[in-house]
Amino acid sequence: MNRTEIRLSGFGGQGIILAGYILGKAAALYDHRHATMTQNYGPESRGGACSAQVIVADAPVSYPHLTTPQVIVAMSQEAYTKYAGELAEGGLLIIDEDLVRPNGDAHCAQRARVRVAGVPCTRIAEQMGRKMIANIVMLGCLAALDQTVSADALRQAVRNSVPKGTEDLNLQAFERGYEHGQKLLAEVLPSALESSL
Amino acid sequence: MNRTEIRLSGFGGQGIILAGYILGKAAALYDHRHATMTQNYGPESRGGACSAQVIVADAPVSYPHLTTPQVIVAMSQEAYTKYAGELAEGGLLIIDEDLVRPNGDAHCAQRARVRVAGVPCTRIAEQMGRKMIANIVMLGCLAALDQTVSADALRQAVRNSVPKGTEDLNLQAFERGYEHGQKLLAEVLPSALESSL
Repeated sequence: MNRTEIRLSGFGGQGIILAGYILGKAAALYDHRHATMTQNYGPESRGGACSAQVIVADAPVSYPHLTTPQVIVAMSQEAYTKYAGELAEGGLLIIDEDLVRPNGDAHCAQRARVRVAGVPCTRIAEQMGRKMIANIVMLGCLAALDQTVSADALRQAVRNSVPKGTEDLNLQAFERGYEHGQKLLAEVLPSALESSL
Repeated sequence: MNRTEIRLSGFGGQGIILAGYILGKAAALYDHRHATMTQNYGPESRGGACSAQVIVADAPVSYPHLTTPQVIVAMSQEAYTKYAGELAEGGLLIIDEDLVRPNGDAHCAQRARVRVAGVPCTRIAEQMGRKMIANIVMLGCLAALDQTVSADALRQAVRNSVPKGTEDLNLQAFERGYEHGQKLLAEVLPSALESSL
């Protein structure tokens, strides 16, 4: 079964759960695939690392447990430290480059090659005047770098999931992230994105 | 490990996912336990049965997959048909009594005794003038009939999760459901709630 596991992580208040919700909705409603979104509550809802686990597949997902995600987004150092070690070999790690400093620590040593993409999601959102849309910038970047969920499906899901009146701003944020992701792909050849953590 | 699996189900538009979100939040933030909430997208997001799976435990939930829920809420016939068969022996089944007609079909035959509570969630919500708060009536009833998540934690989570300006209405809906659940417990002795499906 074609199944992709994606973990979005950061700290509370960054809209990680909403981003996960949108990602699953895009896959299911607009790409017509199957998806689950699991959110953990616990210490993270009291201020620690926050995570949304999204699984996208061609058949109903009966087992929503994430084991070795092919894609991890980390929007905080704590989330990076907690989750980066899970990434599948050859997987894609997207970090907010202003908030996360990657390091080659022990739990990554076993994976020779992953792709790491640094994106200034929060800085772009701040430039647009609304720090809280960093999560949508991140989704745009994800859409450019990973084809599990199509960009068009994500655009529709963003439009139908954000608070009324903020649709245009959020779609602009999405495009800013998307452009940044495409630039990463163009400037740096995809293979050059590969590096050890 | 003390772990309780709860499935809330119904059809799209009944606020099942929001109810699941509130239940997990109440357990984690206000009862200081651990919780996950998994939502399935797929056919259900295009109009079929809709489900939120909530797991509440005393330790972090590393395995969010629901196997034999101790509590199932079914707010539509389709959801009942799809999920009632999963219920653990001795488990609690809450149905919207105007929308679900329980039957003793095959997939329930192996369980001699489950507790079934019929609650007119949608009718109560309609009497209050807002059909869309049926999900919160249901949470109130759940709080009376099952002590996994405390009623006070749920009240706080409801207040902090519903749209601004609707807090009081939603809390009233919660109390209406809670009273109905308590009445079921008082009028019918708890043991008399037990019946075969």
